[in-house]
Amino acid sequence: MLNLQSQTSPRWLAQVQQNLDEILLDHAHCEKKAASAAMNLLFAYVEHEDLCREMSVIVREELEHFHLVREVLKERGIRFRRLSPSNYGRQLHELVRKFEPQRAVDRLLICGLIEARSCERFGLLREHLQDRRLADFYDSLFESEARHHSTYVRLACSFASDKEVHRRLAELAAEEAQIIERGDERPRVHS
Amino acid sequence: MLNLQSQTSPRWLAQVQQNLDEILLDHAHCEKKAASAAMNLLFAYVEHEDLCREMSVIVREELEHFHLVREVLKERGIRFRRLSPSNYGRQLHELVRKFEPQRAVDRLLICGLIEARSCERFGLLREHLQDRRLADFYDSLFESEARHHSTYVRLACSFASDKEVHRRLAELAAEEAQIIERGDERPRVHS
Repeated sequence: MLNLQSQTSPRWLAQVQQNLDEILLDHAHCEKKAASAAMNLLFAYVEHEDLCREMSVIVREELEHFHLVREVLKERGIRFRRLSPSNYGRQLHELVRKFEPQRAVDRLLICGLIEARSCERFGLLREHLQDRRLADFYDSLFESEARHHSTYVRLACSFASDKEVHRRLAELAAEEAQIIERGDERPRVHS
Repeated sequence: MLNLQSQTSPRWLAQVQQNLDEILLDHAHCEKKAASAAMNLLFAYVEHEDLCREMSVIVREELEHFHLVREVLKERGIRFRRLSPSNYGRQLHELVRKFEPQRAVDRLLICGLIEARSCERFGLLREHLQDRRLADFYDSLFESEARHHSTYVRLACSFASDKEVHRRLAELAAEEAQIIERGDERPRVHS
């Protein structure tokens, strides 16, 4: 369903257990960046009515999640602060092809893969976190990440044939799997 | 209530009567830019919880308005397309002071003045448009523009004293009045 080509390794769960506060803080920033990425796509393809409508829904939902994560931080006494992002997003965005319509396909599929990886990892948090309330919180986010993934893949198919989109999705998913395998020393949602 | 230092001249209403389609198209783009400006403020002052919450509300409302205006365009058979913006926004943004916290004050007040001018002009459209359905549409947007204006001014007061904010607001409103007086040959919401 999620089109990922790898499963998260136990290494990440160890990072989570030792650095939960930092992961939660990074999660807030990820929601904010997801809202911004959807807004950028709306601006870039503003004539595309279906895309604009879906991006508006995603912007709204990601901003809601951003505030939900901030509430979690506050409840846990974690001060909200800026944080250097993981290398994951930057490495993925470097794969975007330069010319349209391939550029649109890649931008949408990469957003879709980020949602997919978040979804897979929220599933792990739901399963492994000792704190049941926090586990339930990740359960509540799981569905929307999966839905956003599907929306991005569906929209990519309005810029190229289904066959071409799925060929490229497999290619980008293979790259994503390598990036996530290399990981990041900093504990992050996508480290 | 709106802190404006001038009233729109009849020249603008003449532009509207002769170029309603282009004004409506520009209006859609203005709503999109308003959403983006609020998102940029959220990013710039992400530690400021009150500001982030209010900016999220504004992003959501402006995107809703963007889609409402697109529906109006569609009903009237106006094809949605890109459009060069008026000089209004650019000239206002040139007034932003470079260093914090003055920069935050200015960015918020300028967003507030743009909302105020939109509000004043939507009031005129409500009053003068022959098409009652379109006049009612502008009536429905009037309240939120006024409310956004107040929100921006209130948030500016968290970066400087009330007295300093209102002194600067009067200064910027005087500049805004001059910019709007000069106008723009292209028919726009802020021409």
